[in-house]
Amino acid sequence: MTNPAGRPPVAPSAAELLAGARAAVVPVMREAVDALPEPMRRMAGYHLGWWNTEGGPETGAAGKMLRPALVLAAAAACGDATHAAAPGAAVELIHNFTLLHDDVIDGDRLRRGRETVWSRWGVPAAITLGDAMHACAVAQLVSRLPAQLAIGAAVRVEATVIDISVGQHQDCDFERRTGVDVAEYAAMAVAKTGSLFGTSCALGALAARADPTTVAAMDTFGRELGIACQLADDLLGIWGDPAITGKPVGNDLARRKQSMPVVAAMSSKTAAGQELSALYRRGRPLTAADVERATRLIEATGARTEVLRIADDRVSAALAALPDRAAAGDLLVLVDAIVHRDR
Amino acid sequence: MTNPAGRPPVAPSAAELLAGARAAVVPVMREAVDALPEPMRRMAGYHLGWWNTEGGPETGAAGKMLRPALVLAAAAACGDATHAAAPGAAVELIHNFTLLHDDVIDGDRLRRGRETVWSRWGVPAAITLGDAMHACAVAQLVSRLPAQLAIGAAVRVEATVIDISVGQHQDCDFERRTGVDVAEYAAMAVAKTGSLFGTSCALGALAARADPTTVAAMDTFGRELGIACQLADDLLGIWGDPAITGKPVGNDLARRKQSMPVVAAMSSKTAAGQELSALYRRGRPLTAADVERATRLIEATGARTEVLRIADDRVSAALAALPDRAAAGDLLVLVDAIVHRDR
Repeated sequence: MTNPAGRPPVAPSAAELLAGARAAVVPVMREAVDALPEPMRRMAGYHLGWWNTEGGPETGAAGKMLRPALVLAAAAACGDATHAAAPGAAVELIHNFTLLHDDVIDGDRLRRGRETVWSRWGVPAAITLGDAMHACAVAQLVSRLPAQLAIGAAVRVEATVIDISVGQHQDCDFERRTGVDVAEYAAMAVAKTGSLFGTSCALGALAARADPTTVAAMDTFGRELGIACQLADDLLGIWGDPAITGKPVGNDLARRKQSMPVVAAMSSKTAAGQELSALYRRGRPLTAADVERATRLIEATGARTEVLRIADDRVSAALAALPDRAAAGDLLVLVDAIVHRDR
Repeated sequence: MTNPAGRPPVAPSAAELLAGARAAVVPVMREAVDALPEPMRRMAGYHLGWWNTEGGPETGAAGKMLRPALVLAAAAACGDATHAAAPGAAVELIHNFTLLHDDVIDGDRLRRGRETVWSRWGVPAAITLGDAMHACAVAQLVSRLPAQLAIGAAVRVEATVIDISVGQHQDCDFERRTGVDVAEYAAMAVAKTGSLFGTSCALGALAARADPTTVAAMDTFGRELGIACQLADDLLGIWGDPAITGKPVGNDLARRKQSMPVVAAMSSKTAAGQELSALYRRGRPLTAADVERATRLIEATGARTEVLRIADDRVSAALAALPDRAAAGDLLVLVDAIVHRDR
């Protein structure tokens, strides 16, 4: 990058990168959403955190914009972020379409402290809105990018939608059975979270017209980072500070969620792991006392340390994949923010 | 078309066109489905009527292939059907993805005499499989067509997915309220059925590299035909022969469905229309005697005749849109089969 004033470049903060991504992609997303007929347009803007249920302005309910920030940072790392807004908007719309359907599947009534679309307008509305948002994502992607870039981008996005669908299907399956092992859980996390992170970085590289080797390297970088991000989520779901995460202590344990620390503890073949399995098998939500006990049991198996180690390994693998670390300043800022976040 | 033997060309039957479409598109669909991991691959093949729940062969459960046949016939009418298999497979996959979600939304447990995917494997499986099938449709479309055709085709397909989502949303809304009028119902039918018929014909023309005016004309042709097809369905849902349709007499009335004859009767401002409204408002499924009464009431309002007239008008509009009727032999065979079908 040129720096005409001759001053040393100051690295932007993660907050600045996320704000920059929001500024770049929201106008594109807004155009796609505005093309939907009412009431779907209003429901879409509500889900995206722009508006309240009546269509009035809303603050503090929008997503973090992590995936668009990765698209822009990957494009910048490859030397040209001018075509990155369309793929940035596409990955954010895809992410949100999958959230609409996930909330139906998981029966979640709240997202970011607000009622979910299915809870407010019914399951049919959430399913059809998700389908329409998936279509919006692809339509704006292929119509805004130059033709040859558009094909490759659309194929990657749709391959990722298949991965996410498969991952969500596996995740549902895990909730209904015991004996999930660490490798199975990791494969699910790659599909459900890693794939879209990988595609975000690959699309950034594609949009910068990087060569296929660089695009593949960016995909690997994002994929590994995505798994690390999922594991950080899993750790926060058990040991996060409720005052910061905004969720009850041990939220995932109370719901008997099969997150990585739980899976690692249960497959540890220790007495503590067996006691944890028995707690989960009782078939009802865990009480506050149960959650405290479960947390101690997981720590006793060494699973917390193991998950931290796996997450570290994934971050190392992500960094090792970067084709040109010197040019990847924005990506490194985002890695740091993802790994060290507390909510 | 050349006819080297000098014999007068024999027009294929509708059955032959549908069989030809099946032969052309099933290998493409099969490749997309085979790329899905288990158990999604098996569920997809089950939904498509290829396999039973255990993955063994199944007969008589596959779709009619009307939409792929329209793609092929439209391409043939424009002089070149060599690129029509990929768009044919895409529209059939899109149609089937929307059926997977519709069955969840409508709570339907049976389709073509077999258990629906959500009924057999659960709502999460049906939602995620539908999402994956949507992605398969677009991925195979853009990766098989030449780049410049692919963009236009993908944009049309995704615009249609938005239309179908909007139409399904409106249809759900109709079930919950009274006073739906004929224009509203027609707009819903355009979105839910007409749009994909129109896109099927437009994609056939696009694949034959027809000029934009011809593509637009084919879109109009298909759209009008789609509405006529929906109205034919609505008439069969009330007056169809149960021995041929495979559904109970007056199936749509028993379920208090707001189909076009019902909407037309209720908005007729006749005493019979008011009595029909009162029957529907009672809030419980209609008995056999109620269905018989409702059928006579609809006939008394003149709504059956009115819907037949609207369907005729739509067929006339479709035929008037055809750019070159002399070349459109296969399309005319399909129109005849759609208009005169008895199931």
